Parts: sequence; structure tokens; C-alpha cells
Amino acid sequence: MNIYLSQFLVEMFGTFILVLIGNGVVANIVLKNTKGQNSGWLTIVVGWGFAVGLGAMLAYLLGGKAHLNPAVTVAVVIKNQGVIISGANSFGMVAIYLAAQLVGAICAQVLLDLIYIKHIHQSLSEQQQASVLAMHATGPQNKKIWVNCLSEFLATIVLVATVLVVSYGRLAFTLWSLGPMVVGAAVIAIGLGLGGTTGFAINPIRDLAPRLVHQCLPMKGKGSSDWKYGWIPVVAPLCAGVVGGALALLF
Amino acid sequence: MNIYLSQFLVEMFGTFILVLIGNGVVANIVLKNTKGQNSGWLTIVVGWGFAVGLGAMLAYLLGGKAHLNPAVTVAVVIKNQGVIISGANSFGMVAIYLAAQLVGAICAQVLLDLIYIKHIHQSLSEQQQASVLAMHATGPQNKKIWVNCLSEFLATIVLVATVLVVSYGRLAFTLWSLGPMVVGAAVIAIGLGLGGTTGFAINPIRDLAPRLVHQCLPMKGKGSSDWKYGWIPVVAPLCAGVVGGALALLF
Amino acid sequence: MNIYLSQFLVEMFGTFILVLIGNGVVANIVLKNTKGQNSGWLTIVVGWGFAVGLGAMLAYLLGGKAHLNPAVTVAVVIKNQGVIISGANSFGMVAIYLAAQLVGAICAQVLLDLIYIKHIHQSLSEQQQASVLAMHATGPQNKKIWVNCLSEFLATIVLVATVLVVSYGRLAFTLWSLGPMVVGAAVIAIGLGLGGTTGFAINPIRDLAPRLVHQCLPMKGKGSSDWKYGWIPVVAPLCAGVVGGALALLF
Amino acid sequence: MNIYLSQFLVEMFGTFILVLIGNGVVANIVLKNTKGQNSGWLTIVVGWGFAVGLGAMLAYLLGGKAHLNPAVTVAVVIKNQGVIISGANSFGMVAIYLAAQLVGAICAQVLLDLIYIKHIHQSLSEQQQASVLAMHATGPQNKKIWVNCLSEFLATIVLVATVLVVSYGRLAFTLWSLGPMVVGAAVIAIGLGLGGTTGFAINPIRDLAPRLVHQCLPMKGKGSSDWKYGWIPVVAPLCAGVVGGALALLF
Repeated sequence: MNIYLSQFLVEMFGTFILVLIGNGVVANIVLKNTKGQNSGWLTIVVGWGFAVGLGAMLAYLLGGKAHLNPAVTVAVVIKNQGVIISGANSFGMVAIYLAAQLVGAICAQVLLDLIYIKHIHQSLSEQQQASVLAMHATGPQNKKIWVNCLSEFLATIVLVATVLVVSYGRLAFTLWSLGPMVVGAAVIAIGLGLGGTTGFAINPIRDLAPRLVHQCLPMKGKGSSDWKYGWIPVVAPLCAGVVGGALALLF
Repeated sequence: MNIYLSQFLVEMFGTFILVLIGNGVVANIVLKNTKGQNSGWLTIVVGWGFAVGLGAMLAYLLGGKAHLNPAVTVAVVIKNQGVIISGANSFGMVAIYLAAQLVGAICAQVLLDLIYIKHIHQSLSEQQQASVLAMHATGPQNKKIWVNCLSEFLATIVLVATVLVVSYGRLAFTLWSLGPMVVGAAVIAIGLGLGGTTGFAINPIRDLAPRLVHQCLPMKGKGSSDWKYGWIPVVAPLCAGVVGGALALLF
Repeated sequence: MNIYLSQFLVEMFGTFILVLIGNGVVANIVLKNTKGQNSGWLTIVVGWGFAVGLGAMLAYLLGGKAHLNPAVTVAVVIKNQGVIISGANSFGMVAIYLAAQLVGAICAQVLLDLIYIKHIHQSLSEQQQASVLAMHATGPQNKKIWVNCLSEFLATIVLVATVLVVSYGRLAFTLWSLGPMVVGAAVIAIGLGLGGTTGFAINPIRDLAPRLVHQCLPMKGKGSSDWKYGWIPVVAPLCAGVVGGALALLF
Repeated sequence: MNIYLSQFLVEMFGTFILVLIGNGVVANIVLKNTKGQNSGWLTIVVGWGFAVGLGAMLAYLLGGKAHLNPAVTVAVVIKNQGVIISGANSFGMVAIYLAAQLVGAICAQVLLDLIYIKHIHQSLSEQQQASVLAMHATGPQNKKIWVNCLSEFLATIVLVATVLVVSYGRLAFTLWSLGPMVVGAAVIAIGLGLGGTTGFAINPIRDLAPRLVHQCLPMKGKGSSDWKYGWIPVVAPLCAGVVGGALALLF
């Protein structure tokens, strides 16, 4: 198979799993009448850790690079001075990766909304618009632009640092396929430690694509998609990707 | 030992562990007066993840293929065009695997009902028939056939994909025996993210066999075994096995 | 160093860690005014899993066999027809292992009682004798001899099976030191699935030695050490060790 | 790069991650209006385990020794009779390590206070000074000097023993980079089992540096930094490092 097509499919599949499981956990905890209702923050964070770990593991074992996150793609491209897959066209491959992440995230969120459709209706009928938005995108506990940006920036720096160290540090971690597990563990660490105020997007596409789906949701009374906040979980992680990649290039 | 007999014993043992631990966790959380009463959804899901991981690890280390799930057997048979163990008769081996799964699951559930017998009595005496059924088989939060089917289908697709990728993806994962751990982790991910509305059977025998045991339970006031719903956790995962196996064969 | 002395020290140290962490978790959850008060069953089970996993990992890496449990010692001795360490005297080594387990467990419990001494006093002053006993030894939710025995027997069979399969199954697991982790995971699985009615001793010394310490505790109003139940968590796991070892020898 | 500088940067980075995630989890659980408010002790302990595991993994993969803890540095120096990095000046390298730990911990805590600044204000405005101190440093449930010292000493002994066994025990664990994971797991075990009465500092710098930051925090009504207790989590772990290192040198 063409390497662009196969990389597209694999990256799309990994991001699909990431959003399907990750936002699925949020749906399971915040929507009405689910099995996991009110299971709490630890459950959400563990779920996201397993979502990222499983998505990355599958994409990696299928032969992909398993970024699943534009901030990681940006960091890798800067660190590797343009190269994602050696031998492939740099700009083409970056476009492929970003497109795959977008498509995978949207497909996952649409299916998720179908699976939890009755619970969404039940939540909306009890005025819980915030829960329905929460299973799509993040929202801060306290809105304050510079604090929210700093929080997302710092949390993403930890994620990007982990990905780069695991991929390029001493002793090829990739040899044992343990890299994706460590990245999943890092997501749990980040969520528990740094997710308490913004809800840790740390991934532009994980927030942007489902928010788009929420915007398009044909449902009365669903409430605002909160685009006023929505730029922060896109811009702050991307900045962290740029800074993380540049630092890795320097040292 | 004869390979059919040894494969039967090992597959039976693995499925035995899977149901014993998995439904044991549910019993421990939902029945009256247990140590784990009301420990919540995270505990149930983690328990099922460890149940599948441990059952698969033991069956694998004992020389089996560790399917423990007819949906996985179906997917593997389609992907491998009939072969489970190379050199063995295809139809015979499929029959052996399915029979072993059935016998293992029934034995486990019977023993489990004995261990928790007093708690079952105490639950029934307080009109909690639903809890007693729950420690045998899954039930949905909202009954709606196409949504329930889609949920079980999609959740099983993720499971089957993980099993196939771990078994046949780049870098023989089997070399390090880590495959069963990843499958256990995938069960946790699936349960947290996609189990919120149906309770994630994702395995026909895990639901069917204990439901049969519930049907035969010689106990007054135990209530219905809910066969009206009971076909969905059998049919939807099997369809996912067929589709997953076919996709793996194509790509 | 003499092999009998070094094995004694290592086995004692591993059992010390096992009881120190394991009963420490129970103390932390059930005693008054601790950080972990009322953290629930999942916390207790995870704590015991890490206790066994850490104790076994340290004892193993220090060159021991890391039984930490007379039921395991019995099973291994039967399976190996007397041999624990090849080249060493069989009876002598069995005695060494059992003595080391006893001494390690008692030392750990005494230190634990010192660390949590003020919380023990506070619990007793509020009539919570059951909590103080619980941080020493197990007790059933429903007393019924044959059910309690069956529960402990079955739970220990799963543990012994895991230990034997991990130690002697296909692909030397020991090569990667992952065995102790799998055993720790098995303890979590057993605790969640089969610990709901008796509290899963699954280890005679882990129950007997701390119960002896409780008996000798110089404290007014500490209540009964419940020796009427205390024989079950000793006898049932030992029977499981005998049966598990014999089955492993046969197959 | 100069080996002293590179070791400084790596050890600083690892300690930075450790404090950032670790105290971040405490902030997330104890401060007002966070996502993780009141998630309980299991969440705090798991968070600290992942904090130490991730910090150690990154520092290790970047080529450092990943002590991240003066008690570990002291133990290693005693065990290795002065040597941290072979070929480097012993006194110089010890100074480098301790300085890096101090700087990393302070930077992390300052950033953490910025991220959670609004939640700190909200907590203080409701008279919750104890929560704000708790996200900086540990405090005991019952103050009693010898009990608190024994608790911290014993808990640190378990940590130091794990680090030394993993680094120097049979089968070079370092070969598979699994050492940091085991140390992270040990922190979870210690926190669950032995952290119930003092809150398990088990690391002088993790307690001292953030307490200094708390002392300097320019905030009205923040309350005392509790230096009366603050010497115990520094002195007791250091003693454990000395004793642990000496024992390892002997055996």
C-alpha cells in the first residue's frame, strides 16, 4: 500500500481510538443514568491515560508514528527538521498526519454521540448542558486567560517531553514497544497533577474536533460550544509543541 | 498429551479464570454485605481488565491461544482462513475452543454462586433481583435495540482490533508475553469509555453462559433472566468478530 | 554467605515488606483519623497487590525464590518433589522458608502497630475493636464454615496457579523479572473478584502471624482475636497449596 | 556538554517533574473548585507514584542517575563509597545533585502555585490554610515526634531498599528501563501502606523546598509554614538513607 495512505489510515485509527475512549469516559462519568455516573476525577484521568496508551500502542504496532496529536507532530517536525518518515515528502506527510487526526477525531465523536444518544437527551432534559459539552471538549474551572494558557502550555510541555525522550532517549525504548505505555502513564500523571484547573486538553485536535461536532449537533437546547474559551486548548498546546521541539533540537 | 485435549483444558482454564474473577468483581460490588459493596464503576472495570488479563496470561503461558471469547475465535478463524493451531484440524479446533469456553464459563459461575451464596440470599431477601442478575450477565441502562447493538458492536471491534494487532502487528509482541497485559488494559479502556450504557459484554460466552446458570438457579424470587435483551450481547460481539476478522484479512 | 542464612534473610525481608505494606493499607483505611480513612475496597485491594508485588520483586531480585507464603512453599515443594533450591537440603530449606516467613511477618506487624499506635488508641476509644483486628487479620462478612473454606481455597488456587505458571510456563518469565508483577496483578484480581466475602487471606502466615501479634498486644479493650475463625485462613490456603502443587505435578 | 552541567540539568528536570506532578495532585484534590476536589487518598497516592515514576523515567532515559531525592543520593554515595558517576569528582557530583534537586523542586512549586493561583485564593478566602500548606508540604495526622520519625524513617527505608535492589540486584533491571516503573510502584505501595499517619514525605527536598516557597508566598492569611514539624521529613529520610546505604554496603 502507498505509504501516505497507510500512514493516514493508521494515524486516523489511533486518533479515533483516543477520542472514542477518552471522551467516552467523560460521557460515562458526567451524563445521566450511565453505569459510571459520578465515578469521579480519578476514573476520568485513568480513562484518558488508557485511551492515549491504547491508541498509541495500536497505531505504533501497525507501523505508524502514533502522534495522535498536532502538538506532538509539530514538536517532532521541528526536532527532526521536517522529517516524520524518512524518505517521504515532509510537507505532504505533515498534512497527512494533521488530516488523519482531524478525520479520526470527528468520526469517533460522532459514533460516541450515537452510543450515548439517550443519555445526552436525558441530560439535556434536566438542564445539564455543561455535561454534554464536557463529553466533547474541555472547559476551565476558573476562566482567566493567562492562567489557563500557562496551565495547558505547561501540561503539554510535559507530554511532549515524554514523547520525545521515550522516542529518542538513551536505550531505544521503541525496541520493546513500551513507549506507548509510558506515554499513557504520563497522561495519567499530567491529568492528576496539572489537569485540575483546565481539564487538560494537551492536544489541539482532541478538543477542537469534538467541539466542532458539538457545534453541529442537531439538538435543541444543547447550549453554547464555548468558542470564547475554545482557542486556548488549541493555541497553548501548539506553542508547547513548538517550544518542546526547539528545546529538543538544541540539547 | 493430545493437542485437542490440552488446548481444551487450557482454553477452559483461561475462560474459567475470566468469568470467576470478572463476575466475582460484579458480585463483590453489587451484592449485599460484601467487602466491596458500592465500590463503584472504576472498581468493576479494573476488575474485569485484570480478569481478562490474568486469564489470557495464564492460558497463553500454558501454551494456548488464549481467545477466551467466541468473538475473538471467529475473528482469528476468518483472518487466518480457518487455522487456529497450524497442523490441527480447523473445524475440530474451532469446536474445541467454543466448547472449552462454554464449559469454563459455566463452571466458574457455579462456583461463584456458591462462594457468594449467602450474599445472594441477602440481596434477594431485600428485593434486589437486579443485582443478582448483574453478577451473571449484562443489562443496559436504556433499552433501545439499535443503540445497544451499536454499542456492543463498537466496543467489541476495539477489543478484536487490539487482539489482532497485538498478535500479528509489527514486532512480535508475543515474544515478551506482554500481549495479554495489553489486552487486559484494552478491556479497562473499553469498559471505561464504551461500557457506560450497556455494561460491555464484548464476549458472547461471558454473558450467555452465566445467564444460563442464572436461568437454572434453584432459587425462589430470583426474577427474570432477561432473555429479551440477552441475544444482543451474543449477536453484536459475534458480528464484530466477523467484521474485525474480515478487515484484518483485507489489510 | 551461607545459602541457608542468605535465603532466610531474603525470604524474611520479602515477607516483611508484604505484611508491612499490606496490613498497613488496611490500617490506613479502617483506623480513625488516618489520611486514607474510608478510601474503600479498591484501595485496600490495590494496596495488597502492590504489597505482594513489591515484596516478591525485592526478594526475587535479591536472589530468593520469593514464596512469602506457606501455601506457595507447599505447592512448590510438592511440584518439585521436595526441592526448593537445587543442591540444598530439602527439609532444611523448607524449614528455613517457613521460619523466615513467620519472623518477617511478626516483625512487620509489630512495627506497623507502633507506626499506627495513636490511631489504634483512637479507634479503640471509640469502640472500633473490629477495625483494630482487621489491620491484623481477616474476618468474614458472613460466617459459614464450608462457604468460607471454599472461598479461601478457591482464591488460593488461583494464586498458586499463577505462581506456578509464571515460574514454570512456556517462555521463562523469570528472565525478565516480570513474574512478581504478574503475581501482584493476580492478587488484585483475586481480591476484587473473590475477596468479597472472607477478605482473601490466601496466605496462612499473613493471617496467623499478625493475629498472634494481636493476641499479645498489651492493650485494654482490644477485643477478641477471633481464633474461632482464625484456623480457616490457615487451613484452606494450605489445602489449596497441596492440591495446586499436586495438579501441577500431574500435568 | 560538560558532564557536571548535563547531570545538573537532567537531575533538575527529573525533580522538577516529580514535584510538579506530585504536589499538583495534592493541589488538585485539596484546593477549592478544582476538577479533582475530594477525589481521596488513593488518587493522591497514585498521583505521587506516577510523579516519581515519570520523573525518574525521564531523567534516566536522558542519561542521568535519577535520584531526585537527597535520601537516595546519600544512600548511593555510602553504598558506592563516594562515587555517583564513575570518573567524576565525588564531592563535586554530590553537590551538583543536591543543588539540582533544590532548584528543580523550587521551580516546580512556583509554577504550580501560579497554575493553581485562583484556587489558592478561593481556598484561603474560606479559611482553608491547611489545604494550601498541604499542596506544598506534608503534615501529620497526630503529632508525636518519635512516632512521626519512625514512620518517615521506615517508609524511606522501603524506598531506598527498592532503589538499591533495582539498581544493583540480580539481573540488571536497568537494561530494560523498568527500574523507574518499579520505583514508582514502590511509592504507591509506601503511600498506601505507610503514608496514613504522616503523609509520606520520604524525600527531604520534596518537603523542604516547597515549604520554603510557602514561607515566601506573598499572600495574606496563608498561615504558618509549620517549621516545628518541618524538620522531621528532612531528618528522618536522611537517616534512612544513611542506614540503607550502610546496610547495602555490608551485605
